[in-house]
Amino acid sequence: MAEQEQERPLILLCNDDGVFAPGIRNLYDVASEFGNVIIVAPDRQQSAVGHAITIQTPLRVNEIKVTQEITAYAVNGTPADCVKLAHDKILTRKPDLILSGINHGSNAGINIIYSGTVSAATEGTILGYPSIAASCTSFEEDADMGGVQEALRKIIPYVLEKGLPEFVTLNLNAPPGPLKGIKWTRQAHSRYIEEYDDRLDPFNRPYYWMAGTLEVYDEAEDVDVNAIKKGFASITPIHYDLTAFKTLEKMTKELNF
Amino acid sequence: MAEQEQERPLILLCNDDGVFAPGIRNLYDVASEFGNVIIVAPDRQQSAVGHAITIQTPLRVNEIKVTQEITAYAVNGTPADCVKLAHDKILTRKPDLILSGINHGSNAGINIIYSGTVSAATEGTILGYPSIAASCTSFEEDADMGGVQEALRKIIPYVLEKGLPEFVTLNLNAPPGPLKGIKWTRQAHSRYIEEYDDRLDPFNRPYYWMAGTLEVYDEAEDVDVNAIKKGFASITPIHYDLTAFKTLEKMTKELNF
Repeated sequence: MAEQEQERPLILLCNDDGVFAPGIRNLYDVASEFGNVIIVAPDRQQSAVGHAITIQTPLRVNEIKVTQEITAYAVNGTPADCVKLAHDKILTRKPDLILSGINHGSNAGINIIYSGTVSAATEGTILGYPSIAASCTSFEEDADMGGVQEALRKIIPYVLEKGLPEFVTLNLNAPPGPLKGIKWTRQAHSRYIEEYDDRLDPFNRPYYWMAGTLEVYDEAEDVDVNAIKKGFASITPIHYDLTAFKTLEKMTKELNF
Repeated sequence: MAEQEQERPLILLCNDDGVFAPGIRNLYDVASEFGNVIIVAPDRQQSAVGHAITIQTPLRVNEIKVTQEITAYAVNGTPADCVKLAHDKILTRKPDLILSGINHGSNAGINIIYSGTVSAATEGTILGYPSIAASCTSFEEDADMGGVQEALRKIIPYVLEKGLPEFVTLNLNAPPGPLKGIKWTRQAHSRYIEEYDDRLDPFNRPYYWMAGTLEVYDEAEDVDVNAIKKGFASITPIHYDLTAFKTLEKMTKELNF
């Protein structure tokens, strides 16, 4: 029995909402159906940190009880820090899968590049592990993440069996509640507009607070934001080779040095 | 004369080493040859923040004197925050060009995704402006950034005249000192290995400090890291559509929902 236990896949969980977020418990519930689960996650909210890593200050790891059953390693760093540290110092064997999330809020379209959730999964891919980021488009604390879980139950066995292509991360987003289905998608061209609220503090000094709404420049049905809007879970394979190859070809010809 | 002044291109500068870093003064010197320059940059060191943005706390802007001649807007935020805020609240007309840097340290290979310098330029691209990130591979405070400046003097006039393709940012890196030449490159496949130092604090509690060295999995001469190593300036066109299109095609066929 002990031997059988050892053969279960090892699944590492991370997120950017912090170890105490409901989303990571929802992720834990699904992940533990497929393997032994270890949580290494930020000790506090780290939304919109992008692919930040901590190099100026030391990192600390604390083992804490998230619930009666779940123990987690809480790190005073970013999502990418957590995955690096898990790989290098915390895990005693290589994980078979890394899952990041379930994020409270969408990580589709341009949000992908601001996302700590996605960066944790990307860091997993950089380190050579099959990695999936998962987000629910609702910011509600008690959002019904059943749709995200449903999609994960279909992807996880596939990824555990087949792995993922080199350099590729899967980015899953789904609306709250039940799904209309699951779609493979590409990242929507989009950006935020009207981004800052001007305000005055109690001493009449100005400050700015980010607001703004996402504007999508893509009508197609096969882009992430649009699929989600229609009630589907969206899965986008993403990579971190940022080279714009077409432009490279063009400019090499146009501008010689 | 005043009218002629108004017709000079407007160039926005940002960085991730903070308004007082020598690199941004070196950038200012080049930029002011081509246009009127405005600096909006973090009020302190923000290296390795990736594409982080500040949404939980308010941002403040302070006008400060960097030198006798140079005034800058210092923001208590990330490089991407600075560019967003400049676009939305500080600039009175649209910039013709955004330059980020000159960073103290390389932003080639996998470093691109951790880089605050690059993220400021990427944010510029997202907002629709031609944008260039510039880095010198030396961490020295007084590094000779003449090579980076030389490359910028060749690229800036081209970009001011022709613009850049939609969604594309230029990422320039050069070694300190004089150049052997300038090369168009792609991003090297690379990652960090052996990443954390284990240490004990004065109270015998463990902490971890990021160390590690960059490992490059790319022998080709036309990749950024290798071009720089040979004494060339490297320019890589990068983009922020992270979709892995080949994998998308493959998986759409392989895994139907």
